[in-house]
Amino acid sequence: MTENKTILLNSKPAVLSYASVVGKKEKQGPLGEHFDITNEDALFGEDSYEKAECRMQQIATQTALEKAKLKYSDIDCIFAGDLLNQCIGSSFGLRTTNMPFVGVYGACSTMALTLGLAAIFIEGGAAKKTVSVTSSHFCSAERQYRFPLEYGSQRTPTAQWTVTGSGAVVLTAEPQKAYINSVTFGAVKDLGVKDQNNMGAAMAPAAADTIKRFLTDTKTSPNDYDAIFTGDLGLVGSNLLYELLEKDKIDIRKKHKDCGLMIFDVKKQDVHAGASGCGCSASVLTGYILKKLEAGEYKNILFCATGALLSPTSVMQGETIPSVAHLINLKSI
Amino acid sequence: MTENKTILLNSKPAVLSYASVVGKKEKQGPLGEHFDITNEDALFGEDSYEKAECRMQQIATQTALEKAKLKYSDIDCIFAGDLLNQCIGSSFGLRTTNMPFVGVYGACSTMALTLGLAAIFIEGGAAKKTVSVTSSHFCSAERQYRFPLEYGSQRTPTAQWTVTGSGAVVLTAEPQKAYINSVTFGAVKDLGVKDQNNMGAAMAPAAADTIKRFLTDTKTSPNDYDAIFTGDLGLVGSNLLYELLEKDKIDIRKKHKDCGLMIFDVKKQDVHAGASGCGCSASVLTGYILKKLEAGEYKNILFCATGALLSPTSVMQGETIPSVAHLINLKSI
Repeated sequence: MTENKTILLNSKPAVLSYASVVGKKEKQGPLGEHFDITNEDALFGEDSYEKAECRMQQIATQTALEKAKLKYSDIDCIFAGDLLNQCIGSSFGLRTTNMPFVGVYGACSTMALTLGLAAIFIEGGAAKKTVSVTSSHFCSAERQYRFPLEYGSQRTPTAQWTVTGSGAVVLTAEPQKAYINSVTFGAVKDLGVKDQNNMGAAMAPAAADTIKRFLTDTKTSPNDYDAIFTGDLGLVGSNLLYELLEKDKIDIRKKHKDCGLMIFDVKKQDVHAGASGCGCSASVLTGYILKKLEAGEYKNILFCATGALLSPTSVMQGETIPSVAHLINLKSI
Repeated sequence: MTENKTILLNSKPAVLSYASVVGKKEKQGPLGEHFDITNEDALFGEDSYEKAECRMQQIATQTALEKAKLKYSDIDCIFAGDLLNQCIGSSFGLRTTNMPFVGVYGACSTMALTLGLAAIFIEGGAAKKTVSVTSSHFCSAERQYRFPLEYGSQRTPTAQWTVTGSGAVVLTAEPQKAYINSVTFGAVKDLGVKDQNNMGAAMAPAAADTIKRFLTDTKTSPNDYDAIFTGDLGLVGSNLLYELLEKDKIDIRKKHKDCGLMIFDVKKQDVHAGASGCGCSASVLTGYILKKLEAGEYKNILFCATGALLSPTSVMQGETIPSVAHLINLKSI
């Protein structure tokens, strides 16, 4: 534990397997070929979008376990959360698995949050094998946070497109190619952004704070990393992040990639400021980043997932939008 | 780590301080004199019930820290969650504290979930001091889950009354009188209960499963404990718990106490089947149980908080109600 609360892991909690599940639009994007499972049907065979999201978490979890030839009973703890009220994507999706269940809420920061917790369980001997999983679904998120889908509302230029996708990662105490080297859990930040159609602006201060704390704690600079991924800041949030970090003389431009700008072709796919959702950074991590890490193309990266902690109730009560960003440092041997 | 995933803690993560905050009705109940802070005004000086709930988490956290003469910056990580959509009681309530923030969702099991996670962080060296906090508010919960308060709907005999309250616990790596000896994170259970006005019935299977797993793992029996507390099963759920455990020849009747039946005088205060809410087990733990443990009146207890993982959306889609129960074994030196 360092001054700014970065947690250094000595035991190298390692990535054993992982899986990604996405929808049709994500398959059509620049990373389309990388995802394990894609579905043309937004309902994934279910009769509601919420149940479709449950189904995605099931498929992602099962697929990740199958890749490692593991059963549910081999897993000591599953860490899961999503954007839906009361996180029903996770609790309903995983209710038949009989795995010890740690439900989390970090909005779109969930993939980093669940991985950070799982790594600490393994580091401390509280688990030998874990699953971290999250999801989001365009249709369930839009109708919960914004407008009924049938309304066909006009989207603002700063709006981001919620990814229909899920990602699951199995961590193990046994050595593997890729592992988690350290974790920085972010603090809630709120610089007063009130526009629920500009999540990037609301989340940038949290990302800046967490990245700055991590770099200070580890006495490293952006150049020490092959890449610095943020979750879903999009165009607006990424530029704000650069501005905020520049105040502390930190320049991440050359190393920075935002999952929200990777998964879609922003212009061709008409997603305005980029992508968002728990499933955005989760599917990019499990579809793309971890593969590059295992292949040795990346040796040392930062994965900083960002979450806007608003609810429709808080918006209607005139509240600003607090955010949080959690960071994990992944390395490959 | 045992066969059924109970986590044994060797380092005795210890209870340094704690605080409880409740509303008027809770103060009038049998435990009224034990709570640190009570407020006659259901709004706690704020202009909405949701903001009142944020305020309760702030007060509970601050009070617990003040008792231990600690500042926010002394805390390595805060674990928090609540019942509100997107857990805004926690994220908004704690947004000015600058503490690394792990948001969780476990419905009314949250107090045990946050304590279990915090204990594991301390055990593994990921933190030296932590805060675990949760809350619920009758008015914010009723209008979110059931009906507008103004509607004045008739309550069913199986309904439970959501506690207006919050509890915060500071854990430390330094030895103290009371400590956490082991943790069992529960799996999600769903035996098909659909009645959202009968939370006790929905949660009893999760409590039975977690308690049975803990007793099996530790090779102990109910008689080895001074008391076995459940979170908020109420009258209906407690009786179901006895029935379910009897099938496995486990009889907890003599040792069992339910926080949902302790905080109110069920008949006089007209709360039908008892109390519920994250704040129920949290305020009873921090207002009553931990004091008895520190005083040596209890030496060895189980605290099993239970959560019903439904959402209004899942109910409207005809879904059943999955539940989860997390258990911590608390001892005093």
